[in-house]
Amino acid sequence: MNQRYPSLLLDNAVNEFAKLPGIGRKTALRLILHLLRQDENVTDSFAQALTTLRHEIKYCKICHNICDDEVCTICANPSRDKTTVCVVENIKDVMAIENTMQYKGLYHVLGGIISPLDGIGPSDLQIESLIERIPLENVKEVILALSTTMEGDTTNIYIFKKISKFELKVSIIARGISIGDEIEYADEVTLGRSIMNRTLFNDSYSI
Amino acid sequence: MNQRYPSLLLDNAVNEFAKLPGIGRKTALRLILHLLRQDENVTDSFAQALTTLRHEIKYCKICHNICDDEVCTICANPSRDKTTVCVVENIKDVMAIENTMQYKGLYHVLGGIISPLDGIGPSDLQIESLIERIPLENVKEVILALSTTMEGDTTNIYIFKKISKFELKVSIIARGISIGDEIEYADEVTLGRSIMNRTLFNDSYSI
Repeated sequence: MNQRYPSLLLDNAVNEFAKLPGIGRKTALRLILHLLRQDENVTDSFAQALTTLRHEIKYCKICHNICDDEVCTICANPSRDKTTVCVVENIKDVMAIENTMQYKGLYHVLGGIISPLDGIGPSDLQIESLIERIPLENVKEVILALSTTMEGDTTNIYIFKKISKFELKVSIIARGISIGDEIEYADEVTLGRSIMNRTLFNDSYSI
Repeated sequence: MNQRYPSLLLDNAVNEFAKLPGIGRKTALRLILHLLRQDENVTDSFAQALTTLRHEIKYCKICHNICDDEVCTICANPSRDKTTVCVVENIKDVMAIENTMQYKGLYHVLGGIISPLDGIGPSDLQIESLIERIPLENVKEVILALSTTMEGDTTNIYIFKKISKFELKVSIIARGISIGDEIEYADEVTLGRSIMNRTLFNDSYSI
């Protein structure tokens, strides 16, 4: 009972769709039947957009963010502070930080974090290029903005050791209680950190 | 803030992906970033499977089920009982009934059910072709297997009126308590039907 579909073409399409993470065969079939009900050009432009992206996508040669040219729009923007570099795991993190509109420096996308269990070591990440970039572009501050997990911490320490030879400020994003969270339900480690790293309160302070 | 992505190609691909039902922009981005991490030929074969399917898919000229040739594998199978036709809404229903391995007749896929609210009338469905098919193929029984909804009932009644001029048996799939359900929690209409349409119990009866 391998081929459960009345058409080999359908079977093939379902198999391909179901390779995507979080898409099972039932969802795949539902999405494909939706495409079959639409005009042919809907499927064509969908397939075209994906293949064009996959073949023509570039990575910024400075920060390794995804982009259409040699250098991404953030690195190419003259109004950004080029002496501050925020180290992130992937391009989704760049987008998340960009959406806060709180950061005006540049980024450095590692392309992952050190995770021996997944076989990812420092050499698989863009750490060497970060080290080369610091003296070259006269970087004054490196902000570590990796996940607050064991792997994130390992990567933070590794990078810190590698870049501490330069004369620069190395900071890490604040860990503390999320906005909107109740103290009562916060975990002990986070609450402990939030007390340890308390900031001065003043009149202009607001959520 | 329309273009929130660092690349127009990415933006375009996310837009196309997010047109699919139940796929939001966040999921679209996640799936696309997955494809970007894979080899180029993964995206190529995915896109190819979809476009090939969309352009080359055929519908069986007898039952309107999806297929690769003029006639689907079910209609073309000489061991199936050609005098029994099961009327279903769409090809997913065909697959569901096929998976039960309890039915050896043919199908007739309506391509939807009568739903005035969605602007779907009898002429939008494969009802005329069902009526033509009955004398042509000497059909002896039509089984109505549509959803147990208002629209399903409307369609059942419409089809019944149209085909009652022929000398044939018209049956409807049993409505009753689902296997594994507790009587206590069954809704009244279903429980009422299950008592009204009770079947004879004998030694060979089992779940």
